[in-house]
Amino acid sequence: MRTDDGPVLILGSDGYTGWALTCHLLARGTDVVGVDRFLRRTEAAPSVTPIAAHDVRAAATERFEGSYTFHELDIADYDALERLLAETAPASVVNLAQIPTAPFSMVSIDHAWLTQQNNIQGSLNLLWALHALGREATPVVQLATMGEYGTPEQPIPEGFLPDGRPAPKSPGSLYHASKVNTTVNTRFLSELWEIPVTEIYQGIVYGLPAVDDPRLLTRFDADAVWGTVLNRFTAQAAVGEPLTVYGRGGQKRAMLSIDDCIQCLTLALEQPPTPDGADRYPYRAINQFDESYRMQHLAEMVAEKTGATITHLENPRTEDDSEHYYAPEKAVLDRLGYEPSATVEEVFERTYAIIQEHTDRIDVDALLPDVSWDSNEKVARPVSTD
Amino acid sequence: MRTDDGPVLILGSDGYTGWALTCHLLARGTDVVGVDRFLRRTEAAPSVTPIAAHDVRAAATERFEGSYTFHELDIADYDALERLLAETAPASVVNLAQIPTAPFSMVSIDHAWLTQQNNIQGSLNLLWALHALGREATPVVQLATMGEYGTPEQPIPEGFLPDGRPAPKSPGSLYHASKVNTTVNTRFLSELWEIPVTEIYQGIVYGLPAVDDPRLLTRFDADAVWGTVLNRFTAQAAVGEPLTVYGRGGQKRAMLSIDDCIQCLTLALEQPPTPDGADRYPYRAINQFDESYRMQHLAEMVAEKTGATITHLENPRTEDDSEHYYAPEKAVLDRLGYEPSATVEEVFERTYAIIQEHTDRIDVDALLPDVSWDSNEKVARPVSTD
Repeated sequence: MRTDDGPVLILGSDGYTGWALTCHLLARGTDVVGVDRFLRRTEAAPSVTPIAAHDVRAAATERFEGSYTFHELDIADYDALERLLAETAPASVVNLAQIPTAPFSMVSIDHAWLTQQNNIQGSLNLLWALHALGREATPVVQLATMGEYGTPEQPIPEGFLPDGRPAPKSPGSLYHASKVNTTVNTRFLSELWEIPVTEIYQGIVYGLPAVDDPRLLTRFDADAVWGTVLNRFTAQAAVGEPLTVYGRGGQKRAMLSIDDCIQCLTLALEQPPTPDGADRYPYRAINQFDESYRMQHLAEMVAEKTGATITHLENPRTEDDSEHYYAPEKAVLDRLGYEPSATVEEVFERTYAIIQEHTDRIDVDALLPDVSWDSNEKVARPVSTD
Repeated sequence: MRTDDGPVLILGSDGYTGWALTCHLLARGTDVVGVDRFLRRTEAAPSVTPIAAHDVRAAATERFEGSYTFHELDIADYDALERLLAETAPASVVNLAQIPTAPFSMVSIDHAWLTQQNNIQGSLNLLWALHALGREATPVVQLATMGEYGTPEQPIPEGFLPDGRPAPKSPGSLYHASKVNTTVNTRFLSELWEIPVTEIYQGIVYGLPAVDDPRLLTRFDADAVWGTVLNRFTAQAAVGEPLTVYGRGGQKRAMLSIDDCIQCLTLALEQPPTPDGADRYPYRAINQFDESYRMQHLAEMVAEKTGATITHLENPRTEDDSEHYYAPEKAVLDRLGYEPSATVEEVFERTYAIIQEHTDRIDVDALLPDVSWDSNEKVARPVSTD
C-alpha cells in the first residue's frame, strides 16, 4: 500500500463499493488507478443518490492527497488489461469489476451468461496477465460472496475445511454460481503461480458513507434487481411504501456496512498474505461480515425507526425462508485488526437521512421484485401484511 | 431410452466417445440425433485412426436399426440449441460437447477462455433451454471428470460428502476448473428446476472399440495435447518411441476403457434418477471408472507387451507425481449393473493391433509435451531413461 511501490489498481472503481474505496484510499494519500466499463450505469436503474458523471467525480478527487487516474475498459478485453497492467505497474489490484446481482442473473439466458462471462473472464484475465507479465508478486484482493456457501446445516468455514480441502459451495443463483466459478479458477491460478490473492467472501453490504462534497457520493441501488435488502427497505421507508420481506423472512444473512466493507478491504490490501504469515498463502479466503441478521428482524428494525409497515411477498427466489441454521465462521478479519465502526442502527439512520433528501429519485415500481427463479414472469404478489 | 419416446440427442456426436456411443445406441435400435461443431477436427492434431468425414460416417450408419440424423451446431448458440430441442423433442440428452484437454487450456489465455466458455456456456444453454421449453422432465447425462476432485489425502466421495454437502473440488488445470464450474451451474439448475441430471465424473478413457466397417472407426488422439495417457503410450510403442512418463510417474488416476465408458453411459441413460429411486434426485453424480493405476505401472505394462523403453520427462504439469494417496469411491455404477467387459491388458492389445496398422499417421513430434503449466514454453526435456 506504500504509494512509492506504485498505485492501487481498482477494477470497478465507479461502482457502489468501488467509488467509496477509491475515495477512502485517495484520502489516505494512496494513488489510485481506476477502471470501469460503466455497465452498472447502463444496465441498472438510476442510482437513488444523484451521482456525478465519472469525469466530475474524478475532478472532485483533486482535494485528496492521492492522485486518481481513470481508464474506461472492459477487463474481458485481455490485451487492453495486460497493457494497462504493464503501463501502470500497480502495487496491488482490487477486483470489484463484477456483476453482483442474483435476480439479474435469472432474468434470461442472456442475463445469465453476461453475468457468468463478465465475472469469470475478468478474473481469469487478471491472473493470467499478472503471470504473463512476470508480476506474480502483485497482491490481488478480489470480491467473492458469502452467498457461495449457501445455507448449509453445518458451520460455514472460512474458505477451507479443517482438513484443508476447499469448503463445499451451494450457490443459490447463477450469479452466486458465477462467483463460485471465479473462486475455483482464482484459487487454482493463485496457488499455481504463487500470486498472493485475498478472496473476500463478503456479506450483504448496506448504507452510504458520509461525504461532504456531493460529487463524491457513491451510488445507491434500491430496486429489486440491483439493490441489496436493507438499502431497499431504506428507500421503501423513505417513500412510505411497505417493506417487502420475501416469504417468511427467516432468511439469515451475513451483513456489513459500507464503512466496514471499506475498512476491511483496506486491511486486506495493507496486509497481503505472505509465505511466513499467519494466514494461508498464496490464496487467502476471508469471510467478510460483521453480524448475521434475519430479514424479518431487519424489516422490524426499519419499521420501528420509521413507522413503515411490512409486507410479506411470495418469495420470488427459491431459497429457505424459514428460521434456518446459519453459522459462518470469521477469524482472519479479527486477526487483521477489524473493529466494527458503527451499529446497523447507526448506519441505517445516517443513510436514511441522506435518502430522504432524494425520494423524488426513487422508482417505486422498481422496488417490487419482478424476476422469479422459477418462471421469469412478473411475480410481486403480496400474500400477507404484518 | 425407448425410441417411441423420442430420439437420444447426443451433443458432441463426432468425438471420441460421442461417435462410439452413437454407433452403440444405433446398433441397439435407438434413434440418435447428433450435434457437433467439429472443433476437434479443426483444433486437434489429425486422428491416428483414419476417420471418415462426418457425412460418410452418417451414411455408414444405415446398417443399424436406429436412425441417425445430424446437425452441425455450436451449442453456445442458445437460439439454435433451443430450436433444435423443440424440433427433435429428445427422450434424453447426452452432453459430450466439451473441450476435454488440460494442456490445451494452459496454452494461452485464448485457449483457456475458449475451453471455459465452450464448456460452461454449452451446459448452461442446455439446461436453460429445457426449462424454457417446459421439457424439464428430459433426463440429461453430462460428462464431468474425476479430475475435478484433484488428489486429496482423503477418500473421494461420489459427488457429495456424507453430510450431503457437495464434495470439495481441487482442479489441476483450467480445463478441470471449467468442468468444476460446469458442475456448479448444473447442480444448481438441476435442483432448481427438477431436471433429472446424471453428471458423469469420468476417469481417463483409453482404447478403441472393435468395428467391422472402417467408416465407423472413432477417432484416436495420441498427441500430448489431445491424447490421453495410455493412448499416447500405445502410439509411442507402435512407432518405436520411448513411452513418456511425466516426472516420477507415481500419479494415480481412475481409468476406464472406451467399451466400459459406452456401457456406463448407456446404463446412466437407461436408468435416469427418479424421485423414488435409490439414487440422489434430480441431480445424480456418478464416479465412472473401472480401476485406478499409477502412470509408471501403465508404462511398464505397455513396455512389457511391446518391448518399448520408458523415458521420464520433467513434468510439464504442476501436479504431485509421487506415489500419492488416491481413493475414489464408486457405488452408483455397480448398483446400475456395471460389469467390466475386459481387462486393461486386453483392451490395450486390441487397440495396439489397430494402431499398428496406422503408424504412418502418427506425428512423432506431437507425442512430446510442449505446454507447461508454468511458462507456456516448449518443455519436452528428458531427464532420465529407465
